[in-house]
Amino acid sequence: MSTSKLSINADRLNSTLQETCTSWGALAAPSTGMCRLTLSQEDKEVRDWLVGECKSLGCEVKVDQMGNVFAIRPGTAKDKKPIGMGSHLDTQPAGGRYDGVLGVQAALEVLRVLHENNVETHCPIALIDWTNEEGARFPGAMMASGVWSQKSSTPLEACWGTQDKEGMLMKQALEEIGYLGSTPCDYKDNGLECHFELHIEQGPILEREGKSVGIVTSVQGMKWFAVRVTGVEGHSGTTPMPDRSDALVTASRLISAVRDTALKTELGVATVGVINSDTSSQATIPAGIDFIIDIRCSTDNMVDELAKAIIAAFDAISKEEANDTKYEIKRTWGLPESKFHPICIGSVRSAALEEVNEDQVMEMKSRAGHDSAWTSRVCPTSMIFVPSKDGISHNPNEYTSPEHCALGAQLLLNAVIHYDEKVRLAEY
Amino acid sequence: MSTSKLSINADRLNSTLQETCTSWGALAAPSTGMCRLTLSQEDKEVRDWLVGECKSLGCEVKVDQMGNVFAIRPGTAKDKKPIGMGSHLDTQPAGGRYDGVLGVQAALEVLRVLHENNVETHCPIALIDWTNEEGARFPGAMMASGVWSQKSSTPLEACWGTQDKEGMLMKQALEEIGYLGSTPCDYKDNGLECHFELHIEQGPILEREGKSVGIVTSVQGMKWFAVRVTGVEGHSGTTPMPDRSDALVTASRLISAVRDTALKTELGVATVGVINSDTSSQATIPAGIDFIIDIRCSTDNMVDELAKAIIAAFDAISKEEANDTKYEIKRTWGLPESKFHPICIGSVRSAALEEVNEDQVMEMKSRAGHDSAWTSRVCPTSMIFVPSKDGISHNPNEYTSPEHCALGAQLLLNAVIHYDEKVRLAEY
Repeated sequence: MSTSKLSINADRLNSTLQETCTSWGALAAPSTGMCRLTLSQEDKEVRDWLVGECKSLGCEVKVDQMGNVFAIRPGTAKDKKPIGMGSHLDTQPAGGRYDGVLGVQAALEVLRVLHENNVETHCPIALIDWTNEEGARFPGAMMASGVWSQKSSTPLEACWGTQDKEGMLMKQALEEIGYLGSTPCDYKDNGLECHFELHIEQGPILEREGKSVGIVTSVQGMKWFAVRVTGVEGHSGTTPMPDRSDALVTASRLISAVRDTALKTELGVATVGVINSDTSSQATIPAGIDFIIDIRCSTDNMVDELAKAIIAAFDAISKEEANDTKYEIKRTWGLPESKFHPICIGSVRSAALEEVNEDQVMEMKSRAGHDSAWTSRVCPTSMIFVPSKDGISHNPNEYTSPEHCALGAQLLLNAVIHYDEKVRLAEY
Repeated sequence: MSTSKLSINADRLNSTLQETCTSWGALAAPSTGMCRLTLSQEDKEVRDWLVGECKSLGCEVKVDQMGNVFAIRPGTAKDKKPIGMGSHLDTQPAGGRYDGVLGVQAALEVLRVLHENNVETHCPIALIDWTNEEGARFPGAMMASGVWSQKSSTPLEACWGTQDKEGMLMKQALEEIGYLGSTPCDYKDNGLECHFELHIEQGPILEREGKSVGIVTSVQGMKWFAVRVTGVEGHSGTTPMPDRSDALVTASRLISAVRDTALKTELGVATVGVINSDTSSQATIPAGIDFIIDIRCSTDNMVDELAKAIIAAFDAISKEEANDTKYEIKRTWGLPESKFHPICIGSVRSAALEEVNEDQVMEMKSRAGHDSAWTSRVCPTSMIFVPSKDGISHNPNEYTSPEHCALGAQLLLNAVIHYDEKVRLAEY
C-alpha cells in the first residue's frame, strides 16, 4: 500500500452525519435530538442506506443473528480477520446525533478514503454497526456485542426473547425490518483481529481539561438492580394517613437514598432512570412500584461496595417507615470493568500524536458502557474519545464540534493503518 | 299504593351482585377483585344486562349524552320527576365488587320488589347507572354526574374530549359500546325529584364504632393538583453526581413531602396515585416527571390549607436541593364540600330506624367522592353507608357482608317509599 499520508474528508464526514440524522430518526425541529430506537423503521432505513454505501465501496456485507452489520473491505492477506471499526446507529428515545452515530459515520469515512485512494491494506477492514447498544427499546445495553463476545450472561436466545414496551419480541423486530441475519453472532465464527471505536466522551472531563483527544484505557464496571416495592391498595379518600401502606411513598424514600448514598460515599454514580407503577389511578394508594438502579464505578469492587451501601440505606428506611411496605432487590445485568489492550492503546496514541501535540491528549477511563467493553474480552480493543460540549449526552443537546468529529475520524483512520502495519510487519 | 311493609329479597340481591361481578370484569381467581373500567367491553355487557332487566320490570330506559342510564318505573303522578337511586357499575383497575356496584344492584332489587308487589308509587322511581364515577380510565372522577349537574368545571364537550391511555376519546368509547345517548345530560331536561345512593363506607369508621348504618350528611371537599418536575437529561454513567439535575430524585423528595405534610398537619389526607416519567431508559437521568396529588379534607378551607402546606414544603425542598430542577403545580380538578339535604337525610334516618335500633346508626361525612356530591347541588340528596371490612376499598379485597348489603338495600327501599309519601302528602 501507499504510505503517503491519508486524510479524511471533514466536510463529507460532517455533512453525511448531519444529513442521515435529519433523514432518519430526528426529533421535531427546533430540537436537533434523535429518537432512533433499535430495529425501528428509522433504524431500518439508516441501516439500508449504510449497507448500500458500503457495498458501493466494494465491501462484502454480512448480517448476523443479532442484526449486527459487518461491512468488510478485503485486504491482501486472505487469511486474516478484519480490523474492526465499530459503534452503533441506535439512539436513546431523546438522544443526540453523536453518541454511537459518530463512530459508525467515521468508520464509513475511513472506508471511503481507503476506497478513493485505492489503498490495499494487509488485513480486511470492517465497519460494524452493533445492534441495540442503548438498550432503550429492548432492555439490556450493549446487547448484541455481548452476544457476539459469548461473555455476556444474556445469550442469543434470551436476547431474542426480550420484549419492547408493546410486547414485541426482539427476534420478531429483527425479522420485521429484514435484519435477522444468518451469520453466527459469535466471535469464533465471525471474528475480528482487533476493535477500534471512536466515540464522544459523554462527560465533561476532556472539555474541562482542555484536551482534544482521550485515549481510553478501560471501561468502568456497572451493574443494574431491579427493585420492587409492594404495599396495599386503598382508597385515597377514606384510608387514614397512619393506616397506609403506600408503595410509591416508600419507593420515593428509596430513590432519594440512591442519590444520597452515591453522593456521600463518592464511590461512583447511581441512577434511577425507570419507574413504573402497577396502579395508575389518582384515587388509589399505589401498591406496586418497580424501578431500576444503574450503578457504575471505576472498579468492580467499588460497584459492589456502592450497591452494599445503597441496600444498607434501603434497610434502614424500611425499618424506620414501619408502614408495612416491602421491597425486593435483584441484580439484572452487569458489565465488569474492562481493561483495553496495550497494542490498541498504543495505536490510538500513535494515531493521536500524528495529528496533535502531546498536551492535547490524555489517557482516561470510560464511564459509559460501550460495545468495545465486550469486544475487549475476545480481541484487542481500544477507543478514541472526543469532547462533548458541557459533558451532555443522552440528551437532544448533545454536541461535538465538526472539528472534533473530523479529528476523531482521522485518528480512527490512523489507528487502523497503524495496527494493520503492525500485523503486516509481524508476518514478513 | 299498599302501605304494607315491603321487603327486599336478600338472597336475590346478593346472588345477582356476585353473579354479575363474576360474569363481567372479574380479575383472575382466586382474586375476587374487579377490573370493569368505564365503557369497556365488560362495562357494555353489564349495562346491556341491566337495561334488559329493567325493561322486563316495565321501566322506560333513557341513555344520555354521557352514557348515564336512567331506568324509570312510572308513578301515578305523571307530572312528577323521578325519585333517583343512583350509583355506578364501573370499577378501579384493581377494585372490588361493592364500590358503586352495590348501589346499582340494590336499586335494581328495589325495582324488582316494587314490580312483583305491583306497587303504585306517586313519583316515578329511577335507577341510575352514572358513567365513569371512578375516573380511572378517563381522568375525572364522578365525571358524568358532574356534567348532568351542570356545576362541574368540565362540561360535556370537554369530557367527550378526554382520552384514555391508548388515546381513545371518551366520545368514541361511548359510541363504540352503543351508549352515546340522545337524552340531554342536563338535570334541567332530565331531572330528578331527589337522589338516594347506597354505598359502602370505604373506610374503617362504622366497623370500628360497631355500627351497621351511616347516614351521610355531607361529602368532604377534594382537589387534585398536577405537578411537573423538570430537570436535564444526561448519561447515567458519565454525569458526575453533583452535576445532575435529576427530575425523579426531586419528584421523590416532593412525594415524600406530600405524605409527611398530611401526617404532620392532620388536616386531611393527601395521596400521589399516579406517576409518569418522560424518559424510560435505565441509562438516562430522568428529565421530566409528572404526578398528581389528591387532597381531601372535611371542609374546603382545610383542603386549601393542606395544599398551601404542601406547596410550602415543596418550595423548601426546591431551595435546599439546588440541583436546578424545577417544579410547576396546577389545580386540575376539584369537588367542593357537599352538604346533603335535611329531608333526604330525614328519609334515610326514618328508613334506618324501621330496621335497626338507634345505637346501630350514626351520622357521618363521606371521605370519598360520590355522584351524590354532584346531584346534591341540583336536587335533594342523601346517602346510606354500610360497613367495609377493615375499611379496605379500591382493592380486590374490598368486602361488605351479605347481611349489610341486604340491610342497605332495604334502607334504600324504605327511604324511597318514605320520600314518595312525603311528596304525595304535600300535594293532597
